Order: sequence, then structure tokens, then C-alpha cells
Amino acid sequence: MSSTSNNIRINGERLWQSLMDMAEIGPGIAGGNNRQALTDDDSKGRHLFAKWCQDAGLTMKVDELGNMFMTRAGRESGLPPVLVGSHLDTQPTGGRYDGVLGVLAGLELIRTLNDHNIQTSHPICVVNWTNEEGTRFPPPMLASGVFAGAYDKEWALERRDADGLSFGEELDRIGWRGDIPIGEQAFNSYFELHIEQGPILEMEECDIGVVQGGQGLIWIQLTITGKEAHTGSTPMVARRDAGLAMARIINQVNNIVSAEGQNAVGAVGHIDISPNSRNIIPGWAQFTIDFRAPKKASLSRMEKELYAYAHKLCEDMDVGLEVEILGQFDPVEFDPECTDLVRKAADDLGYSHRDILSGAGHDACWLSRVTPSTMIFCPCKDGLSHNEAEDITSSWATAGADVLYHAVISRAGIII
Amino acid sequence: MSSTSNNIRINGERLWQSLMDMAEIGPGIAGGNNRQALTDDDSKGRHLFAKWCQDAGLTMKVDELGNMFMTRAGRESGLPPVLVGSHLDTQPTGGRYDGVLGVLAGLELIRTLNDHNIQTSHPICVVNWTNEEGTRFPPPMLASGVFAGAYDKEWALERRDADGLSFGEELDRIGWRGDIPIGEQAFNSYFELHIEQGPILEMEECDIGVVQGGQGLIWIQLTITGKEAHTGSTPMVARRDAGLAMARIINQVNNIVSAEGQNAVGAVGHIDISPNSRNIIPGWAQFTIDFRAPKKASLSRMEKELYAYAHKLCEDMDVGLEVEILGQFDPVEFDPECTDLVRKAADDLGYSHRDILSGAGHDACWLSRVTPSTMIFCPCKDGLSHNEAEDITSSWATAGADVLYHAVISRAGIII
Repeated sequence: MSSTSNNIRINGERLWQSLMDMAEIGPGIAGGNNRQALTDDDSKGRHLFAKWCQDAGLTMKVDELGNMFMTRAGRESGLPPVLVGSHLDTQPTGGRYDGVLGVLAGLELIRTLNDHNIQTSHPICVVNWTNEEGTRFPPPMLASGVFAGAYDKEWALERRDADGLSFGEELDRIGWRGDIPIGEQAFNSYFELHIEQGPILEMEECDIGVVQGGQGLIWIQLTITGKEAHTGSTPMVARRDAGLAMARIINQVNNIVSAEGQNAVGAVGHIDISPNSRNIIPGWAQFTIDFRAPKKASLSRMEKELYAYAHKLCEDMDVGLEVEILGQFDPVEFDPECTDLVRKAADDLGYSHRDILSGAGHDACWLSRVTPSTMIFCPCKDGLSHNEAEDITSSWATAGADVLYHAVISRAGIII
Repeated sequence: MSSTSNNIRINGERLWQSLMDMAEIGPGIAGGNNRQALTDDDSKGRHLFAKWCQDAGLTMKVDELGNMFMTRAGRESGLPPVLVGSHLDTQPTGGRYDGVLGVLAGLELIRTLNDHNIQTSHPICVVNWTNEEGTRFPPPMLASGVFAGAYDKEWALERRDADGLSFGEELDRIGWRGDIPIGEQAFNSYFELHIEQGPILEMEECDIGVVQGGQGLIWIQLTITGKEAHTGSTPMVARRDAGLAMARIINQVNNIVSAEGQNAVGAVGHIDISPNSRNIIPGWAQFTIDFRAPKKASLSRMEKELYAYAHKLCEDMDVGLEVEILGQFDPVEFDPECTDLVRKAADDLGYSHRDILSGAGHDACWLSRVTPSTMIFCPCKDGLSHNEAEDITSSWATAGADVLYHAVISRAGIII
């Protein structure tokens, strides 16, 4: 990094103002946002972003799934762009920063280059991925998944929301179906700035998370069938209590994860029992185990231990057990060269940093399949996300965008 | 019991036909009944019962809460009647026998006395208690509770259903508010035949349960407050998982009950967690523990052990704990003289029998506060009740009604 460029900082106030302006579109009811994918508000947010990009001199291309690519030309012809960005769609009760920060920090990066009349060898492209959250059209990270070849385009267009409307119909309705074939364009690399969505950086008062990769995950749904019976008149020995079997497995999930160590995590977040009545022994229970780990071997081991425990337990308790895998994602390792650029930028700028893993899924996890990719985390208050109370400080956003700027222009090559 | 009366059996076919005829009113969708208290169908059922009673020569009195008292005069004037009966209202997805058997076996008892022209010293009165189930107007056993002085009459009349309609309004609307002051009449004793609602008699191929009393119960609602957090990005040590705390307590409930022994039972039938999403650690959990035991000391011990465990656990897990008692009912001991009459009747008739405890609440539990009371159980298939699939055989019903007949006429005194 040259001493000249090293002095350059992004404009934190301008970035913050853009974040606040974007948050005006699709406001939530509690200070956050409800700007779900392919809604009218999503379209409004896209138009605002497009206008800002136009003002910054970027060229817009929109692909068949509505992914927006806003490109600033490079000095040398024929080089693939360095891609930066994230997503503008939110959860139904989402925050102002999840995704939005990565897109608008990309825009701020461009504005800063413009301020200083800096040209880069590679073009730089800012992307807004469609439907990262997946709350309206599951699964999450749908359009980046198609871009990376993980999902089929036609399948994605046929995803439907709770009202039966398809992704394709809604994309047409809001006017954002583009003509660029998805996945056609090659990129030099991908950098995504995102809030951590966890408590580590804030707890450790650390400015920057240098993201090494994404945890793999497996979602295992267990369905236990016992026998409904009156809580008063059924002797203990005659009970086949599906809720009790569930409780024991939930506790065992915690034991398995603790024994595994190695940054593995696990919990049961979703529970359903029937008939769910105070004086009836549950005859049926269904719940999902969420295991995550940075190593695939950890995931496999935990899965195997869970099955061994659950099958034995259910046999002993004379209850039925069904197992269904609801989701699975292998661990992702980000590109070491890109990650090193992030660490070096944080060092050069004097920001504290630590290596970290992403526990959540991100567009960068799919992108890493097709281009060298990495992520930068900034702290968020109380680790809170997917919640209207999600919050960050302007200085956290500024630090993240500064590091993004310097890592990206190092990668793109500066012409002095 | 005289040798003459000992030969008499009730008419099992007639009893069965009456059960089937009553089940035509307020049919369920799966072979059972939905004849909830103070509905139009409840009224229709009452009219049918009243007509049968009129045909059998009984005199009807209805009290202020709609309890129906159908009396056959005794030979000696001034003696208090022996009361028999149960309830005609059902669960929304109830069976054909829960409650109904006790009322119609009372009617069959009268019909049998009429068939044989038998007079008793004491009058015999058949009662249909209003709103035993309490599904529409909680709590259960409401009108017998007022009769026994456990609840206030005005309070009962103000109970409201999910649509905001009051017990009093609905009682007027269906035309069954009577003018007899509730609880005014004194009775000699109370006998209630009921299906077991548990699996013991069927498992042991036993005809008759001689009910010693009712288990006491306590419903303890625990509310645990942890912290919602992302299942992926929250390190295990930073979690405050309300669902995990709940699971451990559910398992401990089972341990506490097993250690207590002495016919104590316990389970968790009702669970609610929030936000109940696959990738969010539960920040809140609420669930109800149902402990029952035939001895009050057992209940108190289990309650105390639960609190000790839960408070320590929640402190260790850094989650909040709130405790609320949702319901409580002391164990009931039925009158030994009445219970002996039941046992003797079963012996004399050659029916197999065993002593048993009632795990569920019944009108007899309240009545025992104001008059010598007891119950007779007959088996039910798979212990199933509060379920349209609830089932019994005609011979089980016949045996129960035979024993009821002989126990009651022994108590009422036969004039030969």
C-alpha cells in the first residue's frame, strides 16, 4: 500500500447518511426495516441505490434474477472487476445494517475514489444480491446461489411466497428482471463487509473481524411419536412421553457440542409438540437441531453422535423416531490472499482486529465457489441481528468501510 | 344385601342404547361428541335426558347454575336422597362416555328399580352437573364446585367463553337457569360411575375400579428468560438458552417424580418458546409442570425439589425464572363406608375389582367436601379419553352400572 493511498479514509458521515436515507424506505415498526425481497419497497430501495450509483458515474447491469452490478471502469482494458457488495433486502423485522452496510460501503468506496480522482487497474463493481434473506422466497442467498451454480435459475424463478406468488412474477412486477445471463460475468475477487451478527467483536472491543470462512451447518429435524395420555390417570411406567424424549435430546445436543469443542456450536431453536395441553402427555414432538462447525469432520461426528443417542433413547422409551435433514451447507474457507489484504489493511490503518469465523450464511459463502472471496466484519451491539433493534455505531461502520476500501484497492491495483 | 336384590341386574342393552341415543346429539367429526356446556346441543341433550327421566317418573328440579336433579321418592319421608350422576357436557373433541355414562347409569338404576317395583327408604336422585369439562367456561367442575362451596355463584355466572359470552347469559339463552338455590338441598351421599380415563383396569383385565380418592394436583408454570441470539454466530459460552434450561427442567421433573414413588406422577404437557425459529436460540420459554399425588406431603416435596433445582439451574445458566401456580387441588379421600359398599357390590356380583386412585378431577372430588362420596371406575380402551376415539365395551358399562345399582340401593335401603 503506498503512503499516498494509506492516508485516504472514506467519508464516514456520508456513509452514515446514506445508511439513514436507505432506512427511510420500508421502515419497520420499531426503528428497523421491513424491506423484503421483490416488494415495492425493495424496488424503491433499488431505485435510490441506482440513482446514487448513476451520480457516482457507475454503469448499471441487471441480471435475470435482478442482481444489480454497478461498475466503475478500470484503467486497463480486459481485466475482470473486483466485486464488492452485499444485499439491500431485509428480514420482515430486520435491522438497518444487515446487508445494507456492505452495499453502501461499496458505494462509499467508489465515492472516495471519485473524491480523490483515483483510478484502479481493475474495474470495481458494486453488487446488490437479490433475496439474500430468503424470508419471502426461501432459501436464503438464493440469487447468489444461482450465480455460483448451486441452484438452478428456473427453480429459483419458481420459488413462491406465502401468498403463492412466484419469484419470477414478483421480479417482473417490480420491474427489476434484467437481461444479463446470470453468472456469465467473471470477477477477479469478491469482498463483503457485514455486521458480525454475533457478540465477539463488541465483547472484545475489537474494530475488525478478519473472516477466515463460514461455518458449515446441518439442520436435523427429529419427529418423535409417543402416545397422548392423561397426565393424571396414566401411571409413570405406562407413559410414552414424546416431550420428555425431546427434552433429553435437547440436553444431549448441548453435551455433544461441548464435548466436540473446536468452535462447534449447536442448539434447538424450533419446537412443536402435540396436543400441547397442560393435562395431556405429549404424544408427538418435532424439533430441529442446528449444528455448526468450521470443520466438516466436526459436523459429521456430532451428527453421528446425535443419531446414536436419539435412536437408543427412543428405543428405551418405546417412542418412534424419524429423522429428516432440512438443510446442509459445508464449511467455507475464504481465499487466503484476499483475507491477508483485509488483515494488512486493518494493520496499516491502526484498527484492532482478530480472525473470526462466520456463523451465519452470506452471499460470500456462495461466491467463494466461483471467485476468490472474503469478508470483513464490524461489531454490532449485543450481537443482535434479524431484529429491529439491531444497532451499530457510525465509527464501527467507518472502520469497516475504511478496511474494505484499502483491501479492495490493493486488490484492484492503484494507478498513481 | 338381600338374596332377592342380589339377583337383580341392570338392563345392559337399554343402557347401551341410551348412550348411543345421547351420542346422536352434538356429534363430533370422528365418532365422538362435541356437546360443550351451555351450547344448543347441551340443551338438546338435557331435554332428552329430562324426557327419559319424566318417563321414568322422576321429579325434576333445576338449580341456579343449571344443575339438574331428577328425584325418585323414597318410602320414608324426610330422609335425604342418595345422589348418583355425573355430567352430560363433553370436550370439544370428546368421547361418548366421559361423564355421560355416570348420568345414564343413574337413569338405568332408576329404570331397573321401576322394572322390579322396588322401593327404597331414601329417595334416589340422579344429577347432571353443568360444565364439568370447563373447556368453554374454565375452570372444570365449575357448577359442582359452587355446589360444594369452593367457588362463588356470582363469579361462576360471570365466567366467559372465548367469544366473551358469560356463563349466566348462555345459561339463560339455552333456557336452563333454574330457581332452586344452589347447594341448598342436602344429600345422604354421592356415587359417581365414570370411565377410568387411564389404562390400568384394561391392562389388568379388571372389571371395576374401587376409587379410594382423587390425586391432588399442582400446576406450576415456569417462565424462563434468556437471550435471543443467532444460532451460528453466538459462541457457546455467550449463550443464555431458555429452551435448554427448559429441557433440563423437564427431564428433572421426571427424575423428581420417579424418586418420589408412592403413585406420584408428573409431566410437562404445555410448552411455548420464543421466537421458535430454527436459527435463533430461544430467548424465552414458558411451560407448565403437572404434578399429581395421592398424598399432600408428596406434592409439597416434589414442588420444593422442583424449585430448588430450577432456581439453581437458572442461576448457573444466567437466565431469569418466574414461577406461577396455575392450579392446585388437594388430594381427596372418598368416604370409606361408601367405598366399602362399592367393593362389596363388586364382590357379590362376581366382578373382578381393584382399589384405584383417580388421576383426573371429577365432580365427586368437590361433592366429597359436603357429603359422603365415592366413585366407581370401569375400563376404557387404551386409557384414551378427551378424544373422539374414546371407547368402552357394552359389558364394561354393564358391570359398572350393576355395581353402581347395588352399592346405591344398599345405601338407600331396600324395602322388600
